[in-house]
Amino acid sequence: MSRLQQEIAEQPAVIARLLDEAWGETEQIAGAIRAFNPPFVCIAARGTSDNAARYAQYLFGHALGLPVMLATPSLHTLYHKPADLSRALVIGISQSGAAQDVRQVLADAREQGTLTLAITNVADSPLGNTAEYTLLLRAGEELSVAASKTYTTQLTVVAMLAVALADSDSLRDELALLPGLAAKTLELAAAISGWAGRYQKVARLVALGRGFNYATACEIALKIKELIYIASEGYSEADFWHGPIAAIDALHPVVLVAPSGATLDSMRAMQADLAKRAADLLVISDDVQTLAGATTPLPVPAAPEWLSPITCVMPGQIFAMQQALARGYAVDKPRGLSKVTVTE
Amino acid sequence: MSRLQQEIAEQPAVIARLLDEAWGETEQIAGAIRAFNPPFVCIAARGTSDNAARYAQYLFGHALGLPVMLATPSLHTLYHKPADLSRALVIGISQSGAAQDVRQVLADAREQGTLTLAITNVADSPLGNTAEYTLLLRAGEELSVAASKTYTTQLTVVAMLAVALADSDSLRDELALLPGLAAKTLELAAAISGWAGRYQKVARLVALGRGFNYATACEIALKIKELIYIASEGYSEADFWHGPIAAIDALHPVVLVAPSGATLDSMRAMQADLAKRAADLLVISDDVQTLAGATTPLPVPAAPEWLSPITCVMPGQIFAMQQALARGYAVDKPRGLSKVTVTE
Repeated sequence: MSRLQQEIAEQPAVIARLLDEAWGETEQIAGAIRAFNPPFVCIAARGTSDNAARYAQYLFGHALGLPVMLATPSLHTLYHKPADLSRALVIGISQSGAAQDVRQVLADAREQGTLTLAITNVADSPLGNTAEYTLLLRAGEELSVAASKTYTTQLTVVAMLAVALADSDSLRDELALLPGLAAKTLELAAAISGWAGRYQKVARLVALGRGFNYATACEIALKIKELIYIASEGYSEADFWHGPIAAIDALHPVVLVAPSGATLDSMRAMQADLAKRAADLLVISDDVQTLAGATTPLPVPAAPEWLSPITCVMPGQIFAMQQALARGYAVDKPRGLSKVTVTE
Repeated sequence: MSRLQQEIAEQPAVIARLLDEAWGETEQIAGAIRAFNPPFVCIAARGTSDNAARYAQYLFGHALGLPVMLATPSLHTLYHKPADLSRALVIGISQSGAAQDVRQVLADAREQGTLTLAITNVADSPLGNTAEYTLLLRAGEELSVAASKTYTTQLTVVAMLAVALADSDSLRDELALLPGLAAKTLELAAAISGWAGRYQKVARLVALGRGFNYATACEIALKIKELIYIASEGYSEADFWHGPIAAIDALHPVVLVAPSGATLDSMRAMQADLAKRAADLLVISDDVQTLAGATTPLPVPAAPEWLSPITCVMPGQIFAMQQALARGYAVDKPRGLSKVTVTE
């Protein structure tokens, strides 16, 4: 069994551990944020962690009315002209805590005197040691180069922080369902290995989501790129109409992240349009009617929409891994990548 | 001659017209922004206009220390949970002014009582009529579906606004050079038609830039997708190390946007790594040594780095157009696209 397969399988347990152990520190940080009352949040992250930042953009906006910007690290590292973040809550997300450009954004923000928070799996890391506060992923060491459990625990930490800031019992109750939902998702995804062959020759793929699940589309596209080296792009379903849809023709595989919720109607409109173009549709959904229109249905359990990015990414992780196995690639150590990438 | 070719050729003249006519209204809006003194900016845009927003992220940060977030329109249109933008300057960018989701972000922001600005080519448009202030592109009607002159005039408007806010004579003097630089760029790009054949069978391409020219990489990748329907992705050079680089192998064409300036060293490090992977490198630069390492050099004139996105995009526009011609595609009316895309 590959490390990646083990780490994917660990997700329900590590999410459960996080929910068991991390409320205390989350509440403490939420208190500091409430006292500071920032008009906006700035998040610095790269790669998979940047997709966790995308999730925070939607969740903090939706649950807290708090606008979130993604940082522009080169202003800090190459231009030495950091923007004025002194009014913002500044968050850095990095699995290893070693991302040098992410650390620099936090260092500049601290120098500007604002509130800084690291979300990382390694407390004693450059990022952890730079930020005033740290929320630890508690995911255990991640050995596979392609991140899986550190991504879903990053989303879970973001969700916990939003719940603590919203101080909402109903959201807290929903979040408690997450380990069970994650386990159910992995059960449903066991069937994926059976049809890996269908996509074995595919050279190009697109993943689409909207709102909370824009992050999911980007993360699934990234997993596919990392593990099987094909051209794969993640888009907001809305952006996709503005140009990129021109590239879709018959048999082009498209992953649609389309769980129940506010975005389902617009995802279904996209599904109908893509079906007319004869695209091959892999559909991640809990909605029976939506799944019925798929070339390859990828069922997930029904979940509160704001938590669906944590479940919906899992069939994508497993699809990418199964494709790598079917193509005979090194699953745990993709060519040309290191586990820790230090960019400036 | 196609409409697209005409519109690409018009760029130096429409940029010159903008610089002639629009300083008065730009200064007026800059005065209102200065009086409001927002801690951050939120920009709503889609497609090509979103790449103009990316340019603004770097330029406003660099020249003004002003943090810029890109809006999350679905929070406004699908979730009906707009974030609190009452402290932000909120800008909508849309060529047609018809983008419904962009308009909704501005409408919500106005209802929240904040300062709103439309950047559009059509004053009497839903967006123009929703925003408190409007900056007009004055680009003349754009008939080609793939935007060219409205993109470079959007960047020019953003640049003018930054100069007015910075109140800097030296920046203003540099900006005055732009029509001449644009004309010189088009002259240098005339050679591109000669080697369109080399890339005629290419099915996949990546465009990389950093800092100011992250926007350029995204916009060139979008033009290629719109006009020749192949898989083409734009990345920040830094993000590209975090996973996507795994997909690059021998002969994979990569466009590097690498003009002189603070990002050149890191773009050259990427160029050296990609050369080891035997990628086919199309290099947009004014730097002779950088061009010397290209498979296909795309020279541009030396320009102040903050203005280089306006020149550096042009070889990409022309490359995409020449590829469409070489492949026998309808240049002015790509399949599956309309000039005005109204998403919610």
